Amino acid sequence: MTASIPCDELDVGFDVPARPGMDEADIQTPCLVLDLDALERNIRKMGEYCRAHGMQHRAHGKMHKSVDVARLQELLGGAVGICCQKVSEAEVFARAGIKDVLVSNQVRDPVKIDRLARLPKTGGRIIVCVDDIDNVAELASAAEKHGTELEVLVEIDCGAERCGVSTTQDVLALARSIDAAPQLKFSGLQAYQGAAQHLRRHEDRKAKLDVAISMVKDAVAALKAEGLAPLLVTGGGTGTFEFESNSGVYTELQCGSYAFMDADYGSVLDENGQRIDRVQWENAFFILTQVMSHAKADMAVCDAGLKAQSVDSGLPVIYGRDDVKYIKCSDEHGVITDPKGALKVGDKLRLVPGHCDPTANLHDWYVGVRNGKVETLWPVSARGKLY
Amino acid sequence: MTASIPCDELDVGFDVPARPGMDEADIQTPCLVLDLDALERNIRKMGEYCRAHGMQHRAHGKMHKSVDVARLQELLGGAVGICCQKVSEAEVFARAGIKDVLVSNQVRDPVKIDRLARLPKTGGRIIVCVDDIDNVAELASAAEKHGTELEVLVEIDCGAERCGVSTTQDVLALARSIDAAPQLKFSGLQAYQGAAQHLRRHEDRKAKLDVAISMVKDAVAALKAEGLAPLLVTGGGTGTFEFESNSGVYTELQCGSYAFMDADYGSVLDENGQRIDRVQWENAFFILTQVMSHAKADMAVCDAGLKAQSVDSGLPVIYGRDDVKYIKCSDEHGVITDPKGALKVGDKLRLVPGHCDPTANLHDWYVGVRNGKVETLWPVSARGKLY
Repeated sequence: MTASIPCDELDVGFDVPARPGMDEADIQTPCLVLDLDALERNIRKMGEYCRAHGMQHRAHGKMHKSVDVARLQELLGGAVGICCQKVSEAEVFARAGIKDVLVSNQVRDPVKIDRLARLPKTGGRIIVCVDDIDNVAELASAAEKHGTELEVLVEIDCGAERCGVSTTQDVLALARSIDAAPQLKFSGLQAYQGAAQHLRRHEDRKAKLDVAISMVKDAVAALKAEGLAPLLVTGGGTGTFEFESNSGVYTELQCGSYAFMDADYGSVLDENGQRIDRVQWENAFFILTQVMSHAKADMAVCDAGLKAQSVDSGLPVIYGRDDVKYIKCSDEHGVITDPKGALKVGDKLRLVPGHCDPTANLHDWYVGVRNGKVETLWPVSARGKLY
Repeated sequence: MTASIPCDELDVGFDVPARPGMDEADIQTPCLVLDLDALERNIRKMGEYCRAHGMQHRAHGKMHKSVDVARLQELLGGAVGICCQKVSEAEVFARAGIKDVLVSNQVRDPVKIDRLARLPKTGGRIIVCVDDIDNVAELASAAEKHGTELEVLVEIDCGAERCGVSTTQDVLALARSIDAAPQLKFSGLQAYQGAAQHLRRHEDRKAKLDVAISMVKDAVAALKAEGLAPLLVTGGGTGTFEFESNSGVYTELQCGSYAFMDADYGSVLDENGQRIDRVQWENAFFILTQVMSHAKADMAVCDAGLKAQSVDSGLPVIYGRDDVKYIKCSDEHGVITDPKGALKVGDKLRLVPGHCDPTANLHDWYVGVRNGKVETLWPVSARGKLY
């Protein structure tokens, strides 16, 4: 009798957390909810900022991993395309019709290089980063094999202390090598200061970006002097994009989290000491969770734990409530203090997760809501695309 | 030309990280690797322990979320079945033919209760926990609707401070209510001391379990006095199972992590002060990662970050190496100190993640290896089953 479980009007929950048209109150938990009005406002606002500052916006697709959000960023925000971190993510975006995809990362494994070199066959532009001269020959050889062209950026480590070269001399050597390689086009610089994005104080972020921008300017001047002027100088995230925009040297921003916001980014302060989730970007991204136990008078347990969210950047914040607080996270449970007994079993709460990127990657669906109704379901198209 | 990317002999990486028969060295990273010999030894060892101590083992399927590992636990370890935390996980296991499934958690949402009440139609035994008298009527009504029987345990909070009732009086009231309900069978007690499992010192775990066992004994005596002797008294994890086994009152263990091990559990000390991953359980579960950048002489960057592993219980440990150390984790990168420059781009390393459960849940596949070869690929069958 194994196959005899009927699926009827209640089949929400078997494969999807919601259906378009249903009330938000009926969504199955825990799941990701997007406030579509807030999301669209964030995306339009970034588009307007970029237009006003003469910057391109290449939205970071590693944050949302969603073809639908990427299209919205093109349509409403004027984004030129997407950046992402993995070849498998680039495959998802390129195959879905995103025509300008940057893998803002190194690709070194032979199988991955081969897959990357096929991707221009989707008809779009494919860009990748290098920080090692051996990688130039690997990329050129694969592009030649597939008869494609790859655009290549030199990655500068401008303070993140991760991938990237650290001197203008190394930038020049790599740029010359790319320029000389068949099937490769030298297109500029990747210079993302990842370590500055989440610093709380505006002056601390500014100090880090002053150093980064100085490095980038030095590299750009040297490249120009060799006739290798960069077409793209790309970087910048939600915590620092104003510095890159006003630098006079960056041409493109890679902001991703601005569209969703999270609790950690939200606590970053602007130059007036205001939280950016109060004055700049709205919370558009939530985990909907349900109270599943209230066996103690002053404590509730909800159904969103470590498998519904990443706590690497802190515990989630319960949205719009200051009477209850999420204080402990285990695999499948969240413990909530409820000193006044305000919650009851079945209540649903919106959580703002600490870190949006790895949280989105845990789920299969975004449930898009507007005016209390489910308007759409979007797959997390590149969820689990790690290779 | 969007559909024109050919998939040929290199299609590993598009959908799967490996193929049976290939060398371990060719597995695409980052991905989960199971050392099948070590896994089988761990599973057999737990089976032997349970037989020697007269305990049932109900392996915790929320840890591995794998139908294949569950079958191995039945076949090699004599496990009676599976426990899990979500109705959607129970659906995966029950539909795959696991005949004895305990949802060791509360199920309160009406849609989830309805799905749970259909599950006995798969032909197996379905057990669930309650900590609230209202839930008894909800479960009974759903079982009646579907013409099924649900077995029900009363959950005691014996120290985890999460779900569960706290007094013998509350246990009795719930047991009576279950016993009186049509379509429900009172089957015993769920008493898992989750807060004790990871305490490093043996004497600290013992102190917590002394309290828990005393509560459970009190409840069992009271139930027996009312003619409601529990069939199952179930609990115990990898950190404490010896206490439950020797308690004289528990009948069943729920250990899960013993099969895989992780860095946090591994550092738990036995009564002789020895790490349990040295003397009791082998590391069978790894993240295979590859060095993708070594632009600084003393620092490597690998491709396993926050989307390849959960760091809620600490950073991963590089297996079998003390010359290099994983020191920083961002979304898609791990930074590794390499003071002697021992690593080079392309090198693969095995990481032991801090916490196996939420790490497994990030991946689609387990790659089973033996003697340096890929022997099998198993889906993470219940990955993302959150509802």
